[in-house]
Amino acid sequence: MSKKWVYLFREGDASMRELLGGKGAGVAEMTRTGVPVPPGFTITTEACNAFYDSGRQFPEGMWDQVLASMKDLETQTEKRFGDPANPLLVSVRSGAKFSMPGMMDTVLNLGLNKATLDGLAKLTDNPRFAQDAYRRFIQLFGKIVLGVEGDKFEHVMDETKGHGQRQDTDLTTEELAQIAEKFKQIIKDSKGVEFPEDPYEQLRQAISAVFNSWNGRRAVDYRRINKIPDNLGTGVNVQTMVFGNMGGDSATGVAFTRNPATGDSEIFGEYLINAQGEDVVAGIRTPQPISKLKAEMSEVYDQFHTIAKQLEAHYKDVQDVEFTIERGKLWMLQTRTGKRTGAAAVKIAVDLVHEGVIDRATAVQRVEPAALDQLLHPMIDPDARDKANVLTKGLPASPGAASGKAVFDPDEAEQMAQGGEKVLLIRVETAPEDFHGMVAAQAILTARGGMTSHAAVVARGMGKPCVAGAGDLRVDYASQSVSVSGITIKKGDWVTLDGGSGEVFAGQLTTIEPQLSGDFVELMTWADEARKMGVRTNADTPHDARVAREFGAEGIGLCRTEHMFFEGDRIDAMREMILADTEDERRAALAKIEPLQQSDFEAIFLAMAPYPVTIRTLDPPLHEFLPHTDDEIRDLASKLGLDFKRVKSRVESLREANPMLGFRGCRLGIIYPEITEMQARAIFKAAAAVKQAGVDVHPEIMIPLVGGANELKLQEALLRKVADEVQQETGVQVDYSVGTMIELPRAALVANEIAKIAEFFSFGTNDLTQTALGLSRDDSGRFLPLYVERKVMPDDPFQTIDQEGVGQLVQMGVERGRNTRSDLKVGICGEHGGDPASVQFFHKTGLNYVSCSPYRVPIARLAAAQSALGESTRDK
Amino acid sequence: MSKKWVYLFREGDASMRELLGGKGAGVAEMTRTGVPVPPGFTITTEACNAFYDSGRQFPEGMWDQVLASMKDLETQTEKRFGDPANPLLVSVRSGAKFSMPGMMDTVLNLGLNKATLDGLAKLTDNPRFAQDAYRRFIQLFGKIVLGVEGDKFEHVMDETKGHGQRQDTDLTTEELAQIAEKFKQIIKDSKGVEFPEDPYEQLRQAISAVFNSWNGRRAVDYRRINKIPDNLGTGVNVQTMVFGNMGGDSATGVAFTRNPATGDSEIFGEYLINAQGEDVVAGIRTPQPISKLKAEMSEVYDQFHTIAKQLEAHYKDVQDVEFTIERGKLWMLQTRTGKRTGAAAVKIAVDLVHEGVIDRATAVQRVEPAALDQLLHPMIDPDARDKANVLTKGLPASPGAASGKAVFDPDEAEQMAQGGEKVLLIRVETAPEDFHGMVAAQAILTARGGMTSHAAVVARGMGKPCVAGAGDLRVDYASQSVSVSGITIKKGDWVTLDGGSGEVFAGQLTTIEPQLSGDFVELMTWADEARKMGVRTNADTPHDARVAREFGAEGIGLCRTEHMFFEGDRIDAMREMILADTEDERRAALAKIEPLQQSDFEAIFLAMAPYPVTIRTLDPPLHEFLPHTDDEIRDLASKLGLDFKRVKSRVESLREANPMLGFRGCRLGIIYPEITEMQARAIFKAAAAVKQAGVDVHPEIMIPLVGGANELKLQEALLRKVADEVQQETGVQVDYSVGTMIELPRAALVANEIAKIAEFFSFGTNDLTQTALGLSRDDSGRFLPLYVERKVMPDDPFQTIDQEGVGQLVQMGVERGRNTRSDLKVGICGEHGGDPASVQFFHKTGLNYVSCSPYRVPIARLAAAQSALGESTRDK
Repeated sequence: MSKKWVYLFREGDASMRELLGGKGAGVAEMTRTGVPVPPGFTITTEACNAFYDSGRQFPEGMWDQVLASMKDLETQTEKRFGDPANPLLVSVRSGAKFSMPGMMDTVLNLGLNKATLDGLAKLTDNPRFAQDAYRRFIQLFGKIVLGVEGDKFEHVMDETKGHGQRQDTDLTTEELAQIAEKFKQIIKDSKGVEFPEDPYEQLRQAISAVFNSWNGRRAVDYRRINKIPDNLGTGVNVQTMVFGNMGGDSATGVAFTRNPATGDSEIFGEYLINAQGEDVVAGIRTPQPISKLKAEMSEVYDQFHTIAKQLEAHYKDVQDVEFTIERGKLWMLQTRTGKRTGAAAVKIAVDLVHEGVIDRATAVQRVEPAALDQLLHPMIDPDARDKANVLTKGLPASPGAASGKAVFDPDEAEQMAQGGEKVLLIRVETAPEDFHGMVAAQAILTARGGMTSHAAVVARGMGKPCVAGAGDLRVDYASQSVSVSGITIKKGDWVTLDGGSGEVFAGQLTTIEPQLSGDFVELMTWADEARKMGVRTNADTPHDARVAREFGAEGIGLCRTEHMFFEGDRIDAMREMILADTEDERRAALAKIEPLQQSDFEAIFLAMAPYPVTIRTLDPPLHEFLPHTDDEIRDLASKLGLDFKRVKSRVESLREANPMLGFRGCRLGIIYPEITEMQARAIFKAAAAVKQAGVDVHPEIMIPLVGGANELKLQEALLRKVADEVQQETGVQVDYSVGTMIELPRAALVANEIAKIAEFFSFGTNDLTQTALGLSRDDSGRFLPLYVERKVMPDDPFQTIDQEGVGQLVQMGVERGRNTRSDLKVGICGEHGGDPASVQFFHKTGLNYVSCSPYRVPIARLAAAQSALGESTRDK
Repeated sequence: MSKKWVYLFREGDASMRELLGGKGAGVAEMTRTGVPVPPGFTITTEACNAFYDSGRQFPEGMWDQVLASMKDLETQTEKRFGDPANPLLVSVRSGAKFSMPGMMDTVLNLGLNKATLDGLAKLTDNPRFAQDAYRRFIQLFGKIVLGVEGDKFEHVMDETKGHGQRQDTDLTTEELAQIAEKFKQIIKDSKGVEFPEDPYEQLRQAISAVFNSWNGRRAVDYRRINKIPDNLGTGVNVQTMVFGNMGGDSATGVAFTRNPATGDSEIFGEYLINAQGEDVVAGIRTPQPISKLKAEMSEVYDQFHTIAKQLEAHYKDVQDVEFTIERGKLWMLQTRTGKRTGAAAVKIAVDLVHEGVIDRATAVQRVEPAALDQLLHPMIDPDARDKANVLTKGLPASPGAASGKAVFDPDEAEQMAQGGEKVLLIRVETAPEDFHGMVAAQAILTARGGMTSHAAVVARGMGKPCVAGAGDLRVDYASQSVSVSGITIKKGDWVTLDGGSGEVFAGQLTTIEPQLSGDFVELMTWADEARKMGVRTNADTPHDARVAREFGAEGIGLCRTEHMFFEGDRIDAMREMILADTEDERRAALAKIEPLQQSDFEAIFLAMAPYPVTIRTLDPPLHEFLPHTDDEIRDLASKLGLDFKRVKSRVESLREANPMLGFRGCRLGIIYPEITEMQARAIFKAAAAVKQAGVDVHPEIMIPLVGGANELKLQEALLRKVADEVQQETGVQVDYSVGTMIELPRAALVANEIAKIAEFFSFGTNDLTQTALGLSRDDSGRFLPLYVERKVMPDDPFQTIDQEGVGQLVQMGVERGRNTRSDLKVGICGEHGGDPASVQFFHKTGLNYVSCSPYRVPIARLAAAQSALGESTRDK
C-alpha cells in the first residue's frame, strides 16, 4: 500500500500543521470539533516534497487517494464532480506551515465547464451569475494555474466594457459567455493548450500548480528573507464550494464573537440573504446586522450562535468567522482570531480572565502594547472626522487629537492661552526657546523635522498631540499664516490635528476624551506582576512627573535640565553666562540660576518621591540658548549693557557646522566646570532640603556624551566634591549616585573603563543611533522614509532600535560594564524606551529599566511584561 | 658580609640598567670602554627599595660601602673629601631605569663648606667663582635636599641686586659671601636645622633625598600615567666634580660626532677656554668652534676626537657629548644619542650602513618618519626667519613654506595666478567651491577650521602649505583685507607662511627648496624591502597621482570625485542636476558631466598605471555644490532660466542641521541611482578606452558611508549592471572590483554582512572618528586642544588614531570582514594613513595598505617599514 498522501478534513487536527499546512490543520480542527465545514481534503506537505523529489511528478498513489477523497466529497454533499445536473464544485488553494505571500491564490469554482455551467445556472436560478462564475474561473485558472499574463484577460474585459464606459456589473449574460470564449482563445494562443473542460484534468493541473508555486520566485525570495526552510513544502486544500446565492433560504455573512470596537460580549456582524461573499465586500447591497438573522432564520441563527461561542471557547479568543447558508444549511467557511481596537483588546482580555477562559499571563500577552496609545489620548469623534477634509498630512509625531486657534509665535501662544483661548502652535520647526509656547498650546504642528525632532520629542514628553514635518505647509511668519494646497490659514483660524495619524484639518472638530477603564487598571496590575524590568519616565517638570506616576512610572530615568534654563529671566542669566569672558563673570551669572534650579529640583523630587530621579547635567550646545535674529541680539546686548557687534560676533562664533557632534554634553562641564558645579549644588541642596522635610530622595546624577573614562572621572570628582561641601553645610546625608549616558559608540566600546567610575549607565539610544549610523535625525527626512519603504532598513531606527547595529553596542556596553562592576544598574532613556519591539530587546539584553515619555509608560509596562512572559514561555 | 649596594663606575656596564639605573649604567659603560669619565659610583636601585622596606633607613652596610667608594675616588683623583687644601667635590643625582621627570635634580659641588671653599678659590685662582659655587650649592641643597621653598632664596638674590637693577654677574665676591650666610639662615628658619658643614653629612642627606624623591608626588603621578611599576626604585650617582675653569689649560664644551644639521661626517661642536658648562649655555662669552681646539690643544683635541669616534662606534650612532678639560686633562661627562634634522638623520643612517656600522634594517629604524616632512617641503631660509616678525600663529595644517600676494577671493586668486603672480589665498574658511582658488594659490591661510578642515585636507592633498584656524585674524571680505594685532594686510601685500610651524609673516621671506637626495632614495628602497603593508595615495587629479608616484605610491587608495564637479562649467551642470524636479531632468544634466568625468578618469588611470585606482562615488551633501548668497543664487537662477525665489527656496530646503550625518554618501546614490550610474559609466568607459590604448587599468569602485549590507547591495547591483553594459558596448573586459568605505561604527559592527558583497574595505578613519567619538572635526576647536593639554585624550584623535575606541572598530571590521571573506583586501584612506603611530597600529591590525596624501607617502612607507621591523625584532 502506498503512503497516505491525502487527509480528509475529518481525519486531521490542529496539531498536524507541519503535515497539512496551517490552513489544512485549521479546517481539520474545525471539522473535528463538530463545526459544519464544507467537506474537503488536504494533500500533505510531504506529497509536495515527494513531487519535487520525483522530478515534479505526483508521488505514487497520490492521485488515486485524491480520486477516492473526491468520491467521499460526492457522498457527503450528494453532488457529483462534473455532473451537469447537480455539479460538485471545489476550491483549490495552497497552505504551508507558515502563511506565505507569493504562493498560489485560491482557484474557485473548479469543476465548471460548459456542461456543469448550466447545472449551476439552474441550481442558483441565476444564469448570469453562473456565466460570470465560469468567466472568472477561466480567468483565474488561466492566470494562476496556467501562468497566462493577467493583462490579456483584463484587456478583453476592458474592450467589452467600452473602455470604462460600463462596469463589470453592466455586462450581460451573453457578453459574459462571449468573454469566456475569448478567454479560452487567449489561453490557447498564449500557452498552446486548450482550456481543460474535464473537471479532473482541471483538478490535476490545479494541484500541480500549487506544488509548483512553492518554488515560484516570490515564494523563494520570501522564504530567504524570512529564513523559512525550503524543505517544508506546501499542502493543497481541496474544498467543496457552497453558495449563499441559491435563493431566499441562502445567505452569506461575517461576524465577530464579540464587539471588536468596544469588546462587549455580543455577537457582532452582518449578512446578506441570497448573496455570495463578494457581494458583502462590494457594498452594492447593504448588509443586515446579524441580530436580524435571528428573526429571519431563527433556527440557523441559534446554530450559528452556538457554533460561534463554541469556536471562541475552543480557540480561547474572539473569532472572526465567515459563514454561508446554502438552502437553509449553515456552513462555516473560516474562523480566525478577530482584530480589535485597543479598548476592546483590554476589555476582552480582562473579561476572558473573569470568565475563566484564559489566565492573567495570557491576558497580558493578548493586548498589543502599541494599541494602548488609543486609550491614552483624545480622539477625533469619528462622525466629525467623516465629514472633515484632510488639509495635509505630516508625521504622527505625538498621539492624540486637539483643536486650537492657529498661532505662529510662542509668545503670542502664551498670551492667548493666558487669556483663556485654546491655541495650536504652528512653526516651521521648534527650538528650545519656543518651549513656553508649546506648553501653552493644545497641540503643535511643524513643517519641518522628523519623528525625533525637537517638537516631536518635547510634545511626546508633555503628552501633547503633535504633527511634525508636514512638508507641504508654507509657513509665513511675516503674514502670520500658513498655506497648503490652495487654502490659507490665518492667525486665529481653528485647526484640528490628529497626532496619531498625522492628519491636519481646518476647523474645530469634536474630540472624545479617553477614559482609563477599570479593565485597563486591572490588566496593568497583572502586567506589573509579570514584568522584570523597571519602567521609568523621561520628565523635566513636576507636572510630567505626576502624570507619569499616574501611568505607573517607578522613577525618572531622564530629567533634562536644559528646559529649565529657558523659563522667565533664567534665559537672560544663561545668556549672560555664555557671553561672559571670565570664569568670575560666568560664576556670577550662574549664581542667579542656582536657586531657581534648586527649587525646580525640589519640586521634582517631591513629585517622584520615594522613587529615584536621574538628573542629566547640561547637554545642548550653548548656541541653542542664544538669540538668532539681529533684533533679538540687539535686545540682549542692551539688556546686558554690551556692544551689539560684540554680542553678534560672539553668537556667530559659537555657531557650529555639526552641533550634534559639537561642543556639548560633558564637554561643556569639563571646559566650564563652574556649570556642573552650579548644577551639582542645586541638586544636592534641593535633595537636602527635601530630605529635611522628611521626604525620601534618591538623586542619580548623569553625565551626558561621555566618550571615555577620563571625562567622567573629571566630572565625578567635581560632583563628589560639591556633594561633600553641601553635606557639610546642611548636615544632611543624601543617598546619591553618579553615572553616565552611554550615547556614543566609543562609550559602549570602552564601557569596561567607564564602569570603573559610573555607578549606572543609561543608554541614550537617540544619539547612539545618530552616531552609530551617522544619521542626523533632523536631516534624515529626505531619504529615511524611502529607505524603510524600500526595505534598505527594516524600520525607522529612531522608532524601533536597530538591533543589528546599535543593539550590538548596547549589548557590548552592558556586558563590558558589568564585567567591571557586576551590580551596575543599566537603563535606557532614548525614545526607544516606549517602543514595544525595542523594549523586548532591552529585556533580552538584561537592562534594569527602560525610561520613556509619560504617556508611553503603560505601553512600556505592558511590553516589558510580555517580554518576560514570552521568555518564561520559551523557557518551558 | 652585607649585600653589595654600591658599584664603582668601573664595576658596571650597560646591561646593568635595572640595577644601576639608566644614568649609572651609562657612565659605567663609558668607563668600561676606557673613556676618561670623572670617577664615581652608583648606589643601586635595590638599595632604594631596601631603604623603603626598612622605614626609610639606609640598608645595612650601604653607608660603609659609600665611605669605601669615596676613599676609592680620593685615591683616583688624588683629592680628599673635605680637605681644605685640595678638596674632592662630587655631584649627586638620581637615575632610575627609565628617565623620569619629577625626581631629584643634580646637586653640584657637594663637599663645599667654609673650609673647602678656600681650597677651591685657590685651585681655580678665582675666589668669586668659588664663592658663587658655594652660594649655589647652599641654594640647591636647601631647595632640593632640604625642601626649602625656592622663592625665599630668589628673594634674597633679588634684593641684593636692587630688584633688577643689576645682574647675577654684577655681584661681588663679598656680596656672594653675604648671600651664602643669608641662605644658611633661611634654611635654619624654614626647617629648624643648620646647613650641614660636614661633607659626609651633606652626602648622607643628599642620598636620602634622592631615595625620597622616588616617592615624591610628581614622580608617583608620572609613573601612574606612564604605567611604570612603583617597585623599580632609583639609583644614586655620586661623581667627582671636574672644573673647566681652572685656568688657560682648562675648558668645557659640547659636540656632536657628526653634523646634526647636515649629517656630514665631521665633529661638530663648540667650547670655551677657562669656563664651566653653564657659561656655554648662558651665552655671555661666544664659544669657539671645536676645530679651533685642535690648534689650541692639539693633543687633547686628538684624544677627544678619538674618544668621540670610539663612542660613536660603540653606540653605533651619532653621539652628543659633553666634555671638560681640567688642567689639560680631558674628561667626558656625558654621551647620548644626538638629535638631528630630518636631512641629517637620513644621511647619517645611510652613511653608517655604508661604513659597515649598522645594517639596513637599523638604518630604516633610525629615522623618525615625521622628520621626513622637513625634506619634502620648502623651508623659510633660517636667516630670513631670524629677522622676520611672526604676525600670528595658526594650526600647522599642511607643511612647507611659501610666499604670495594676499588675495581674498578664489576667482581673483585664479586670475592673478593666470597673470603670472604668486598669490596666497586668505579665507575665513574654505569650501569646495573655493577649490580653483586653492589650486591657483601658493599657500592657503584660514581663520577658522582645524587640522582636518576642508582647507587643511585639500592643501595636504596638493602638498601646498596651509595654516588653518589662525583665530586672531580678522578677515574682512568687504574691504579685502585682514587685520591682526594692529597690522592690516591688504589685497596684494606679500605674506609668507610656514605650514609646518603654523607661523604667518608679513612680507616676502626667502624660502629654500627641498632636495631629495640620493641618500633619501636609498633609505626608502631599504624601507620598501622591509615593509609588509602597501602604501597608496589619496589623489583626485593626475597631477597629484604623478607626485605621489614619485614619492613611491603604489596606487590610489582614495580618488574623491566631488572636486571634479567644481571645475569650469561642470558646477553649472551639477547645480542643474541638483535643482531638477524629475529623474529625466537629472539625467539630462548628468549627461553633460559624464564625458568630462570620463576624461578625468582616463588621465588618472594613465598617471597611476599599472597600479589600482580606488574611486569613491559622490560623497558630500548636495548643498555643498549650491551657491549661498542671494547674488550667486540670482546668477544661477538666470543661467538656468529658473525663478530666483524657487531656486532660493530649494537651496534653503537642502540645508542641513548636521550635514556630516545627513543626506550624503551612498544615500545620494540610492535615492538618485542615476548619479551612481553616470559615475559608473564614466569609470568603465574610461577604463575601456585606456585599456584599448594598451594600458593596464584596475579600477576599484568604492561606495561611501555604507551602514549596512543592503545599501551596498543596491549600489553594487547598479555598478555591475553598468559594467556589463559598457563591456557590451566597447567589447573590452575591465578588471574591476567593488568595495566600500567603512566609516560608520555600524559598518564595522556588521562588517561580516557587508563583506558578503564588498571585495574590499577602506576604513575612512576621519569620519569613523567623528561618528565613534561624536566629534565634529570642524567644531572641536573650542575644546579638543584643551582635552589634549589636560590629558583627557592622549592625542588629537584626528591626527593619531584613537586606538582604544576607533581602533577597536577597525579591528572588529577587519576581523569580521575576513571571517566572511578571507581574502578581503583592507586599507585605510583617512588622514591617519600618513601618521606614523597610526600606521604602526594599522600594520598590527593586518591591513593590506594605507593610503595618504601624496606628500606623506614617504612617511607612510618608512613608518610601515619600521612597524614590520619592530615586529620582527619582537618576534625574535
